[in-house]
Amino acid sequence: MKDINRTKEQIQFCIRGELWDQLFGLLEELHPADIADVIEDAQDEVQSRIFELLSDETKADVIAELDDSTEADILEELSVEEISDIADEMAPDDIADMLSELDEERSEEVLELMEEDSEEVRELLQYEEDTAGGRMTTDFVALPDTATVKEALIHIGSLKLDEPVYFAYVVDTNNILTGYVQIWQMLKTENRQKPLGLLAEENTLTVTPDTDQETVARIMSKYDLSSLPVIDIEGHLLGRVTVDDIIDVLEEEASEDIFKLAGSDDAELEDPSPFSSCKTRLPWLLITLGTGFVTSMILKGFMQSITTMEVLALSFFVPIVMGMGGNTGIQSATLIIRGLALDSFNEKALYRLLLREMATGMLMGAICGSVIGIWARFVIGSSTAFHPAFLALSVGLALFSAMMFAAIFGAAVPLILNRFKVDPAVASGPFVSASNDIFALLIYYGVTFLMISVLPV
Amino acid sequence: MKDINRTKEQIQFCIRGELWDQLFGLLEELHPADIADVIEDAQDEVQSRIFELLSDETKADVIAELDDSTEADILEELSVEEISDIADEMAPDDIADMLSELDEERSEEVLELMEEDSEEVRELLQYEEDTAGGRMTTDFVALPDTATVKEALIHIGSLKLDEPVYFAYVVDTNNILTGYVQIWQMLKTENRQKPLGLLAEENTLTVTPDTDQETVARIMSKYDLSSLPVIDIEGHLLGRVTVDDIIDVLEEEASEDIFKLAGSDDAELEDPSPFSSCKTRLPWLLITLGTGFVTSMILKGFMQSITTMEVLALSFFVPIVMGMGGNTGIQSATLIIRGLALDSFNEKALYRLLLREMATGMLMGAICGSVIGIWARFVIGSSTAFHPAFLALSVGLALFSAMMFAAIFGAAVPLILNRFKVDPAVASGPFVSASNDIFALLIYYGVTFLMISVLPV
Repeated sequence: MKDINRTKEQIQFCIRGELWDQLFGLLEELHPADIADVIEDAQDEVQSRIFELLSDETKADVIAELDDSTEADILEELSVEEISDIADEMAPDDIADMLSELDEERSEEVLELMEEDSEEVRELLQYEEDTAGGRMTTDFVALPDTATVKEALIHIGSLKLDEPVYFAYVVDTNNILTGYVQIWQMLKTENRQKPLGLLAEENTLTVTPDTDQETVARIMSKYDLSSLPVIDIEGHLLGRVTVDDIIDVLEEEASEDIFKLAGSDDAELEDPSPFSSCKTRLPWLLITLGTGFVTSMILKGFMQSITTMEVLALSFFVPIVMGMGGNTGIQSATLIIRGLALDSFNEKALYRLLLREMATGMLMGAICGSVIGIWARFVIGSSTAFHPAFLALSVGLALFSAMMFAAIFGAAVPLILNRFKVDPAVASGPFVSASNDIFALLIYYGVTFLMISVLPV
Repeated sequence: MKDINRTKEQIQFCIRGELWDQLFGLLEELHPADIADVIEDAQDEVQSRIFELLSDETKADVIAELDDSTEADILEELSVEEISDIADEMAPDDIADMLSELDEERSEEVLELMEEDSEEVRELLQYEEDTAGGRMTTDFVALPDTATVKEALIHIGSLKLDEPVYFAYVVDTNNILTGYVQIWQMLKTENRQKPLGLLAEENTLTVTPDTDQETVARIMSKYDLSSLPVIDIEGHLLGRVTVDDIIDVLEEEASEDIFKLAGSDDAELEDPSPFSSCKTRLPWLLITLGTGFVTSMILKGFMQSITTMEVLALSFFVPIVMGMGGNTGIQSATLIIRGLALDSFNEKALYRLLLREMATGMLMGAICGSVIGIWARFVIGSSTAFHPAFLALSVGLALFSAMMFAAIFGAAVPLILNRFKVDPAVASGPFVSASNDIFALLIYYGVTFLMISVLPV
């Protein structure tokens, strides 16, 4: 890997010095994924300049590796003729991805200029991007079940494909998928006259084009598949999803969940402007702000019902109770959201999960409640309007109640959303925090009020 | 997929009714990954009972799919003889994974009872679990560069391996890895007398056994590799990491980051006891609790420096300022942590990233500060000890400052940790929140104090 870094340094030097001729040689040494990195890291003004240096074949590989925003920028600078030349070097699924970055008119012009594959690309463009149809490639080998092993091996050896082939799908006379045969399996078969139908691995898992990409990823990851066939309702083979696309899906989904937990969006990884960051983050912060308005009204309301000095004494602990409630809720929500994403729970365990979170919340609440009670009794208690023991008891009990509630609430919200087929990650982080802030405060003042009216202060 | 669910329902029925004979037939219909699900979902008492029903071959496949804690439970019930019989059906890397769940003595006994592969397994057991060595399999095909295509095809056809073979590694006379050839490439080569050395794809990426699994995953994901060779310092081929293991690594790493953000651990996904949840979550909550002690002392300190009514008026906004500071910080931290994990940033962009986060924080702070200022002026202001305009100005300015600071701090902490080779996710969530709580409070009271001393109240 050291050589790559050295080459990249030399490339940086050439870009700064505008030594375009030397740059060409250096770039061609790199893997397309690394060239894509170089272009993404370069200043906007020179990105197209660097890209233009490459051969059409390399351009095709690099386009497939670029992130969406850089790809869009570069395509904007190219003519439709140039784009169609590049497309002629690309696999149909990569072309479809590329054309989806263009407006409809330009995309249509490129399709008309293309020498081959334009029909396949048109079909691929019909599917939603985040479905099996949108992720699949139409590059695959399908053979009739009557073909012999010998015929199959000769046919595969004669194929002119860019991507390596590892196996052949087997279809019956109605062109319906019945299974697949590994090339290795063919080589191992001594009787080369054996028809593929007798060799084929049946019981093949399949998906339809509208299957969600996350479902596709879960299936492939669970059963360790390197390739998953996509079929229509009648069972005709339309394409296949390959494992490298699935890795991208898994990373995207994980990023999405992480960013949603924080009240943000993974689009931020691509667009570096503070304005777009602000646009994605602000709505979530406004939820917190709205909660703040509610809490300030609650605090004001309480101020009018008890004495000033009492409110003041209690207000010392408002940040602790709210912070602990918020964090406890997030911990529960995170466990449930990630567990659901990874399919770690069976749905029937729902009730058990909630009980477990309640138990965890009670346990942690009892410990933290005791600690804060002791703190309130000995450190803060002496200088307030309350008897130190009363303060200790009520603050401790309030924290215990708030944490238990937060744990249940944090677990319940994503589970309920999931039940109603809403992505549980959507309303997790800031939503759970905000609700727990309000509830924690209400519980805190509710408990202490109850104690004031029951116990001698 | 519908059939699987129906079979699983029938299985549940058989388990509840203890119909073990019927269960056997139903289980054998399922994929090992699904049998593993059934066992994981079953009550502890019957897990081993279900496992015992399976054939040795199926047991071997199921063991490789079980989660760690269930696997350990089941292995505990088995004799070393039974385990070694199962091991004889497994690939060396899966055996090594299984033996690492046993204590050293039992593991040694199993190795001595095994009929084959025990030397390979011993070697694999030397490597750390989370390195290329710990993840690699020793199942691969390596051929001398002088072998002809014809010899290679015959050799591959004669192999007795459980896993499909897609390509052969090529080694020179010193047994040093020089490249690889796809089987498909061999089939396409018309001159079957051509030596592999002339066909081999050179410039193969390699890693050493001690390479971190996350680095391995990044390389394979970036270059879309289905297999990555592991070599020793001299260049001898030791094994290879396959893409299905890498998917597990990527999911584990994403889970780790998600859980750390919330102050928890992905071990929680496997161990369902509230006590172990409590043990992983509590330390993080205690950070928040400690912060709470600090904030309560700060509040108490401020109380003694200004009038009670002033403290009271200001305390209405404490939850808002702290909540907004906390969330803003988490948003920044999340962006940086995920970006670093996905390798989206080049290190030189560090300075630009910090500037950008500051700009985002200022922008969001200005908007939220204005909103809260208006709220303070017209809704809360009339009933406090301050002039409403003063309250609006100081609360708004305090929120602006706190948010700007939180955005910079949230971005800086993970960047600094990363610089010092500490996993940036470790100290993110609760640590950033806790620090931002304290800083937000200090900034809030600092700004308002400054305003009190400068402006007419």
